[in-house]
Amino acid sequence: MTAPPQPRPAFARWLSETNDITQTFLSAGRIPGLINLGGGLPDPEVFPVADLARLAERAVADHPGDSLAYAPIDGLPELRDEIARRFSVDGLTLTRDNVLVTTAGMQGLDLVGKVLLEPGAVIAAQSPAYLGALDAWRPRHPVYRAMRLGSNGFDPAAAMAGAQFAYTVPNFSNPSGRLVPLAEREALVDAAHATGTWLVEDDPYGALHYDSDPVPRLLTLSGRGQPGPYDGPVVYMGTLSKELAPGLRIGWVIAAPQMIRAMAAAKQGSDMCSPGLSQRIALDAFRSGLTDRVLPPMLHLYRARRDALAGAMAAHLSETFDWSVPSGGMFIWATARDPGFDTGALLAVALRHGVCISPGQVFDPEGRDTRSMRLNFTLNPPERLEEAVRRLAAAVAEQAATAG
Amino acid sequence: MTAPPQPRPAFARWLSETNDITQTFLSAGRIPGLINLGGGLPDPEVFPVADLARLAERAVADHPGDSLAYAPIDGLPELRDEIARRFSVDGLTLTRDNVLVTTAGMQGLDLVGKVLLEPGAVIAAQSPAYLGALDAWRPRHPVYRAMRLGSNGFDPAAAMAGAQFAYTVPNFSNPSGRLVPLAEREALVDAAHATGTWLVEDDPYGALHYDSDPVPRLLTLSGRGQPGPYDGPVVYMGTLSKELAPGLRIGWVIAAPQMIRAMAAAKQGSDMCSPGLSQRIALDAFRSGLTDRVLPPMLHLYRARRDALAGAMAAHLSETFDWSVPSGGMFIWATARDPGFDTGALLAVALRHGVCISPGQVFDPEGRDTRSMRLNFTLNPPERLEEAVRRLAAAVAEQAATAG
Repeated sequence: MTAPPQPRPAFARWLSETNDITQTFLSAGRIPGLINLGGGLPDPEVFPVADLARLAERAVADHPGDSLAYAPIDGLPELRDEIARRFSVDGLTLTRDNVLVTTAGMQGLDLVGKVLLEPGAVIAAQSPAYLGALDAWRPRHPVYRAMRLGSNGFDPAAAMAGAQFAYTVPNFSNPSGRLVPLAEREALVDAAHATGTWLVEDDPYGALHYDSDPVPRLLTLSGRGQPGPYDGPVVYMGTLSKELAPGLRIGWVIAAPQMIRAMAAAKQGSDMCSPGLSQRIALDAFRSGLTDRVLPPMLHLYRARRDALAGAMAAHLSETFDWSVPSGGMFIWATARDPGFDTGALLAVALRHGVCISPGQVFDPEGRDTRSMRLNFTLNPPERLEEAVRRLAAAVAEQAATAG
Repeated sequence: MTAPPQPRPAFARWLSETNDITQTFLSAGRIPGLINLGGGLPDPEVFPVADLARLAERAVADHPGDSLAYAPIDGLPELRDEIARRFSVDGLTLTRDNVLVTTAGMQGLDLVGKVLLEPGAVIAAQSPAYLGALDAWRPRHPVYRAMRLGSNGFDPAAAMAGAQFAYTVPNFSNPSGRLVPLAEREALVDAAHATGTWLVEDDPYGALHYDSDPVPRLLTLSGRGQPGPYDGPVVYMGTLSKELAPGLRIGWVIAAPQMIRAMAAAKQGSDMCSPGLSQRIALDAFRSGLTDRVLPPMLHLYRARRDALAGAMAAHLSETFDWSVPSGGMFIWATARDPGFDTGALLAVALRHGVCISPGQVFDPEGRDTRSMRLNFTLNPPERLEEAVRRLAAAVAEQAATAG
C-alpha cells in the first residue's frame, strides 16, 4: 500500500453540470436564526404523530409479510388497488395495472427519465420548471423546449411534436404557484393525443387549494370517454410527502399499463421495491381516513401563512418585485421589474441578513432567469414570515445601495 | 379525444435488452405448490416482528422529526455515525463523511453507475456476476470485462486497467457462493491502488458465515496503514435486507468522501432521501443490539438448510452437476458436466415439476453460461428443500429422455 496513489477514473460528465444550490441551502441551515424561505418543506407540526406511531406499530405487528419482506417491485397489490380506486372518477377507469408505487415523487421523475430518455432526447417542459425534475434528468443530457403556459401564442402541439414527453405541474406549479386553468389543460391533453407524446402531470400540491376549486386532472381529461382501463398518454405522479409525511417516501405513478411495466423494469434496477413498512402505513392511512382528516387543519394553517407572506411582501417588496398571490400550493414566485436584477446575488446578501430564498436561475433549464425568486410560506409561522420579508427587504436595499 | 391515437415515443433502448427472468419468477409464484429455489429471499420467520413493531412505534412517537420529515440526502447523521463506528476497525478510521445511507443495496449499485458510467464505459466484473447489478447498470450500456477470481493466471491489474470500476462480491458471491480468500483480496486491493480504479465491494452476505471465519474486508485491507479518515478506492456496500428485514429498504455505502459526495448528488435526483422512519428503526436496531441478537438463530436455521440442500443434491444430482458447498451465504451454484446442458431449458421443465431455479445465463453479462444454475437454500425448510431437489432430479431426467 505504499505505492503513490493513482488518479481515479473521472466522474460522469453530468456531475460537473449540477448547480450548488442544495449545498448553499445545507450550509444556510447551519446559520443560527436564519429563516428559510428557500426550501419546499411542510411544517412538521402538521404530521399526525400519534396516529402514525400507532399505524407503524400495527403495520409491523399485523402485517409483517407486507412490512418486512421484499414488496413486489410495482408495490403492494392492495395499495395499488386503493390508489386506483381513489383516482377513478366518472369517465375514468383505473385498475392496479395503471399504478406503480414509487419511493416518493422524485423517483417517479427519475424513472420516467430512465425509460424515455436517450442522450439528446427532447423534453417539452413547463417553464419555469421544478428544480428537482431538472436534477433527475440531468444525467441523461436532455434538450429542453420551454412551454410557457398561458403566454400569448403558446402552441402545445408545436411544443410537444418530437418530444419524448412533456412535463407539467398543473396544480400550483413549482416554482410559479400557477393553477393551470381548464382550457389550457384541455389544450395540453388534446396536443398529447394529437402528437402521441407522453404527458407527465406532476401533482404534489393538488390537495393544497386554499381558495380555489379543484380543476380536473390532465389524467381525467385524457381518459374521458375512453372505454376500459386507462391507456392514454398522461403519466400522473402523486405523493404523500405534502399531504401526510415525506419521511415515509411514498408516491405513485398512474399511467397506461405499458408505461407502468416499463417504469417497474426501471425501478427493479433502481431500488428493487419501495419500503413495505411505509407502503402498509400509507394503505392504512388511506383506508382509515387519516389522509382526509389531516387536510382541513393543514389547509387552514397554510392559507394563513400564504396570506401573511403575501401581506408582508405587499408592504415591503412591491417597489422592486411583481407577483401573483397563488390560490394554493407552497410558493410565491416574484419577478423583479428591473431586467438587470440578480436574485442569485440577492441570495448571498439575504443569507447575511438571515433569510434564505430560491433564486430563479435554478428553475430555468437554460439558467437565464436571473431576476425571479421563489419564496416558501408553509414552513414558518406568520410572524416569522413577516420578519423574513423585512430582512429580505433590507437585503434588497443593501444590494441596491451597493450597485448604485 | 376522437382523433386516432398516434404512435407513442419509443422507450429507451436498454428496455429491449432486459431478460425476462424476473417475469418468469413472478409467474412461477402463482403456480400452486411450487417450491422456489430461484430467488434470494430471507425466511420471513427470522424477522423479529415484535421487536420491530415496538421500534417502529417508538421511532415515530419519540423521533417524529427524524421519522416523518425529509431526511438529509446522505442520511440521518446519527445513523451515518453509527455505521462509521461499526465498520471502523484497527487501522481503518471512518467518519460520517465516509457514509451514505441508501434505499437498500440495489440503490448503491444504481448510484455508482450513475456517477461513474458514461455509455461504453468498462466495468471489470467478478464472473459470474449478480443479476441485480447487471440490471442496475444496463441503462448505461457498459462494456464488461470478466474477472474470473481464483482461476489460473487471473491478473487483477490487467483486468482493472482502464475500467471505471471493478465489481466484486467477496463474501459468498451471488451467484457462486464463493468466499474470496485473503490472498486474492489483497491482490484485488493492490491492483485497485496500482491502477487507480474504483473497487466496489458488494457485501450483502458478509454476516452469513455458517462454518467459516470472517476474512478482512477489501475496505479494511485498502485502508490499512493510511492515516486519517478513509480515502481509498474501495466503495463498500452493505444492507440490512439479509440481516434484519428487506422491507425497511436500508443499505449504506462506505467510501472516500469525494465518492460519497458524488453519490449523494446522484441520490438527490433519484429519491431525494431514504425513508426516515426506516433509518430511525435501523439506528435503534443497531444501538439496542437487535441486529446482533437476531444473527445466531438465523445462522443456525440457514446452516441446517444449506446442509439439507447439499445433502439432497449429493443424493439426486451428482451424476449431472458439480458444485462446491459454500461456507455461508444463500446459494449453491451448480454446473452441469455436459457443456451442452441447457439450464434455461431445464427451468421450463422444472416449473412443470413444481420447482423454480435460476439459470446461469442471467448472471453472465455476455449471456453465454447456459450450463450453470443457482439454488437458494434460505427460504425453505429442509423437507421442502429435499422435495425440491427430488422434483429437480425428475426434471433433469425428463430433459435427458427428451433430448435422447
